[in-house]
Amino acid sequence: MTRKPVLALVGATGAVGGVMIDIMNARRDWPWGEVRLVASPRSAGRKMTVRGEEITVRALAPEVFDGVDIAMFDVPDEVSAEWAPVAAARGAVAVDNSGAFRMDPDVPLVVPEVNPEQIANRPRGIIANPNCTTLSMMAALGALHREHGLRELVVASYQAVSGAGQAAIDRLYAELVAVAGKQVGTRAGDVRELLAAAGLSAEDSPFPAPIALNVVPWAGSAKGDGWTSEELKVRNESRKILGIPDLKVSATCVRVPVVTTHALAVHATFERPVTVAGAREILEAQPTVVLVDDADGGAFPTPADVVGEDPTYVGRIRQALDFPNTLDFFVCGDNLRKGAALNTYEIAEKLAAELAG
Amino acid sequence: MTRKPVLALVGATGAVGGVMIDIMNARRDWPWGEVRLVASPRSAGRKMTVRGEEITVRALAPEVFDGVDIAMFDVPDEVSAEWAPVAAARGAVAVDNSGAFRMDPDVPLVVPEVNPEQIANRPRGIIANPNCTTLSMMAALGALHREHGLRELVVASYQAVSGAGQAAIDRLYAELVAVAGKQVGTRAGDVRELLAAAGLSAEDSPFPAPIALNVVPWAGSAKGDGWTSEELKVRNESRKILGIPDLKVSATCVRVPVVTTHALAVHATFERPVTVAGAREILEAQPTVVLVDDADGGAFPTPADVVGEDPTYVGRIRQALDFPNTLDFFVCGDNLRKGAALNTYEIAEKLAAELAG
Repeated sequence: MTRKPVLALVGATGAVGGVMIDIMNARRDWPWGEVRLVASPRSAGRKMTVRGEEITVRALAPEVFDGVDIAMFDVPDEVSAEWAPVAAARGAVAVDNSGAFRMDPDVPLVVPEVNPEQIANRPRGIIANPNCTTLSMMAALGALHREHGLRELVVASYQAVSGAGQAAIDRLYAELVAVAGKQVGTRAGDVRELLAAAGLSAEDSPFPAPIALNVVPWAGSAKGDGWTSEELKVRNESRKILGIPDLKVSATCVRVPVVTTHALAVHATFERPVTVAGAREILEAQPTVVLVDDADGGAFPTPADVVGEDPTYVGRIRQALDFPNTLDFFVCGDNLRKGAALNTYEIAEKLAAELAG
Repeated sequence: MTRKPVLALVGATGAVGGVMIDIMNARRDWPWGEVRLVASPRSAGRKMTVRGEEITVRALAPEVFDGVDIAMFDVPDEVSAEWAPVAAARGAVAVDNSGAFRMDPDVPLVVPEVNPEQIANRPRGIIANPNCTTLSMMAALGALHREHGLRELVVASYQAVSGAGQAAIDRLYAELVAVAGKQVGTRAGDVRELLAAAGLSAEDSPFPAPIALNVVPWAGSAKGDGWTSEELKVRNESRKILGIPDLKVSATCVRVPVVTTHALAVHATFERPVTVAGAREILEAQPTVVLVDDADGGAFPTPADVVGEDPTYVGRIRQALDFPNTLDFFVCGDNLRKGAALNTYEIAEKLAAELAG
């Protein structure tokens, strides 16, 4: 096509939408002829600035997709479920960051540096963006899988609260203020008492337990047999992205009092022998991975040093002592950037390049 | 013997020593004829109250062990290495909570509800208490192992800072005050800047990275090939306590901003089939384990609700979907109680019963 493509961002006024606008403002290449910002009717009319241009947010309606080539959705599952097909019916390719379509066999689930070829395979005109926890490890695992053949994955997460939305961030901040300067002592319920004394009721929290000075082994919703939605997403999405339908996966997902950036302890078993030196070489050659690793512990990634960064950071790479062909390592990735907005935008960029022929 | 045994507590004025005195004060049975409190010369002369009796702390010296039947050591490795043999030479059984003797083949490593028979096997007159991280999961794993035969263990820890001593607790409190009420934004280094602005230099921290609003995948010292001392303790001590010399273990040990109570995500593979219902039954029958678990997520243990409690709390028990004979579960245990002082005291109690014949 000769005209430049038109991009829509649905959910422009949300938390991930805001990160998306930061990403767009900082991008070097700019393939778009027009950007439309779309949100719920109550946010419509707000003005937001993208690359120096003031844009008025439009209310979500079928007409906003007319003439749009690519529509990015950063909205709750039920909004995507209803509106991504509307955008597709009006001729746009919908790139959806919700969970609504990820496991639909007619919707590819894409990480551009892992399975870019899947972008072309979109019979419904919809492409899904993976869950942030899964995404945090995909760049590293995809690169290692290509060389060594991934077979098994045991994962424990240290998940930031921002993955649960603004209310979760606000709650963590409020709880921190309530406990700071206090001794929590050695009695069960100390933290709960401090929160109650500060007027922070348990019922009002997005978390099922205190999140300050605590960790909460529960993320998402109950999916039966004790598993959470988040844990099953790690399993099912990893299988689909990597194209390994029988990949063995066990995940335990735990919230920690960190604002942004998910971390994962990964125990990965491969079909073929793998060494720490070989894994380092593969990961160093992967442009979207940064290796922060040395054997004596002077260097490793932590969430506080990875927040706001685009790449996935990998460290603590160790050969498992008792498991053949197995590596243990630690991954940190900004759950709002690569884990959400950035990956979605990278898919949109790939689509723009495809349209440009 | 007809007289009641004499108990010494070496390290009475330390953090674990304080918890030990709390435990002694709360104990129903009291088999001891005399308690001696021992500490470094600079703490000698201090008066502490045990069960209503004021006791003057004595300076560590060979004579303090004369007439002592059982000497509990809650002191650094190098102090135990020197003084536990002195106590043993003077006729006491030394029960040592340091890392000095744990892997000595002539020193049993004991968890009373798992391998009590090992108490009798003490040619050096020394019995070792396991590392707190290992201990947090031993009551549960020991019970499951007896029935199903443990083969493999993949563990990720969420470790409280008090395992690293009072300086670590103080640092977490100071960092919380420095970040509370501030937005940490979305840039790498935000937390570091807040800490620096509050006068908390990185060099003065017991942690190699910020611990507030962060997690730190490093505990203990470097042991080669990327492994930490803490991770190797989990492997080697689990093997010794459970009596499975070829147990396959991979551990990743991570500090989290929690004051007290370690949590562990455990992926355990057994020789024989195991069901969630069967595991629950076994754990419910284990007096030192409390099950807080329901499949739809309404109940699970968190550190804030387990601190100060004696038992190990287990929840989130799931049958691994892709790994045969494998359970995933989440454990919380107070690292200063069962993880340190309580287990040591329970060993001393068993010895007292043995002496009473």
